[in-house]
Amino acid sequence: MEVALAVDIGGTKVDAALVDGAGGIVPGSRHREATGAGQTSATFSTVLASVCGRAADAAAPGSHRIVGVGIGAAGPLLRGGTSISPLNMPGIRDFALAPAVASAAPGAPVRVALDGTCITLAEHRFGALRGVRNGIAMVVSTGIGGGIVLDGRIVLGNAGNAGHVGQVWVRRPDPADPVRATVEAVAAGPATVRWANERGWPGADGRALAVDYAARHPLAVEAVHRSASAVGHAIAAYAALLDLEVVAIGGGFARVARDYVELVEAAAHELAVLPAARGIRVVRAALGDDAPLVGAAMLVLAGVGEPQPQAPAAGG
Amino acid sequence: MEVALAVDIGGTKVDAALVDGAGGIVPGSRHREATGAGQTSATFSTVLASVCGRAADAAAPGSHRIVGVGIGAAGPLLRGGTSISPLNMPGIRDFALAPAVASAAPGAPVRVALDGTCITLAEHRFGALRGVRNGIAMVVSTGIGGGIVLDGRIVLGNAGNAGHVGQVWVRRPDPADPVRATVEAVAAGPATVRWANERGWPGADGRALAVDYAARHPLAVEAVHRSASAVGHAIAAYAALLDLEVVAIGGGFARVARDYVELVEAAAHELAVLPAARGIRVVRAALGDDAPLVGAAMLVLAGVGEPQPQAPAAGG
Repeated sequence: MEVALAVDIGGTKVDAALVDGAGGIVPGSRHREATGAGQTSATFSTVLASVCGRAADAAAPGSHRIVGVGIGAAGPLLRGGTSISPLNMPGIRDFALAPAVASAAPGAPVRVALDGTCITLAEHRFGALRGVRNGIAMVVSTGIGGGIVLDGRIVLGNAGNAGHVGQVWVRRPDPADPVRATVEAVAAGPATVRWANERGWPGADGRALAVDYAARHPLAVEAVHRSASAVGHAIAAYAALLDLEVVAIGGGFARVARDYVELVEAAAHELAVLPAARGIRVVRAALGDDAPLVGAAMLVLAGVGEPQPQAPAAGG
Repeated sequence: MEVALAVDIGGTKVDAALVDGAGGIVPGSRHREATGAGQTSATFSTVLASVCGRAADAAAPGSHRIVGVGIGAAGPLLRGGTSISPLNMPGIRDFALAPAVASAAPGAPVRVALDGTCITLAEHRFGALRGVRNGIAMVVSTGIGGGIVLDGRIVLGNAGNAGHVGQVWVRRPDPADPVRATVEAVAAGPATVRWANERGWPGADGRALAVDYAARHPLAVEAVHRSASAVGHAIAAYAALLDLEVVAIGGGFARVARDYVELVEAAAHELAVLPAARGIRVVRAALGDDAPLVGAAMLVLAGVGEPQPQAPAAGG
């Protein structure tokens, strides 16, 4: 059976597994190693090679053939994903991925995309965006990310960085600090907890906020509604610009309230200025923590991203 | 020579012409009729048939073969463009286009897209977006519209309405009147003139604003900068979401200042929170008033929009 070596590079860990064309993870093939802000290119290379090697070793001789390596990575990507400069690993800049995974799958083609792109590919093929020609998968967690499907195809953009859904503004940005006005800075988990804390809510995190929301603690309710309202605002903007049918929301913070997705949809409809936004459906993402790996595998197994647009190399 | 019967349906007029594959308009084939808010479906059908018939009559027997009808229309489109409900012709709702043009080109296939989509197709094929894989063409005029090219393809969206670039917010929207916070409501020509008038500038229109901007009248300068800043703000949001290389700006109001495009680019860069927005280039659109017709012809001649996604018909 043809399988892909799928790799998910997050801010604090690397996951790898073998994934088949039906989105199944080969038993025993999933491995994880912690990374974090202290990595250098050398230590990160070692971690990557190790976790990939162990995943690849799970291939049963004669029954699993590794046909490629698919990598999902936290952005931004450089030059279509030939290298990465992860924001939360400052010691790693312009790191070339293909050489670091080559030992685990010699000669196999390597494809790289944003983690949000991979999650969206997985939801589009196997999850909440199945059959959807125009939609977004959105992860609301410590940050907000995602990916975009338009006219039935995943969108990559100039250097593979399309789908930064968290960097759309929901307040008027101040040029001195435009990040603060993004939907991620307003509505993600830590931002929402901080907002409630500043107003006197004593809880520590999103879990505590979920408990207090369920108990109808007024500040918890207000904080969750504020988050959902900002996410709905952003979705109404995407819908006007892109004429979408569905947005699927996943991520840990989307579970802060049983009705989080409904609140988001109501906020999107309330602000709609065009039919596309009035009719948009907001649903829960269907896949869980496997989505980044499954989607990374689809880069290879579904031939996504070929030919991936390559921006000209810096300085040449 | 194969030509398309190209039709451009605006708020106040209908244009039609024969266009060849190189974007050339067949001499003598361009015709226009006024429409306007008073139209009914019956009068509009007559106008359409008349202007299309006259354009088609310019085909030289034996040398021009009309292979299809391409129509660009002011939005929103219904069901992928099988019918339209133009905002500024309230007497026309769910108007089916194909039957109204059939007499001018019997049996020829009909393709419909937003006018902004057509302008973008024309700029992508023959103008400022040539060779660009990820870009937007934007028209800043009495309104703000446009279209989007991603990964080398024009974006259509669920019902053909992708590219409503003017309906992205640049202020925090009030649910009671979310339209007021859109970049169109803030930065288009009439909005900018009104803003300056409210502050005491006595001029009548964008032309007068252009004269006073060139003369460095402080209020005219402030008004133009405010418009360019809002357009740049919107572009920075598109760039973050879609990872674009270039935005081409056309439309009458973009000529209000010799440096309008430069002001817009500076504003987009100032607000950038991601590399994609920091590197975006804002340029002048290259094609003029012919762009909507040339792009409408490309719907047919370049096979764009097939298969055009069709939303399910209302009620079945």
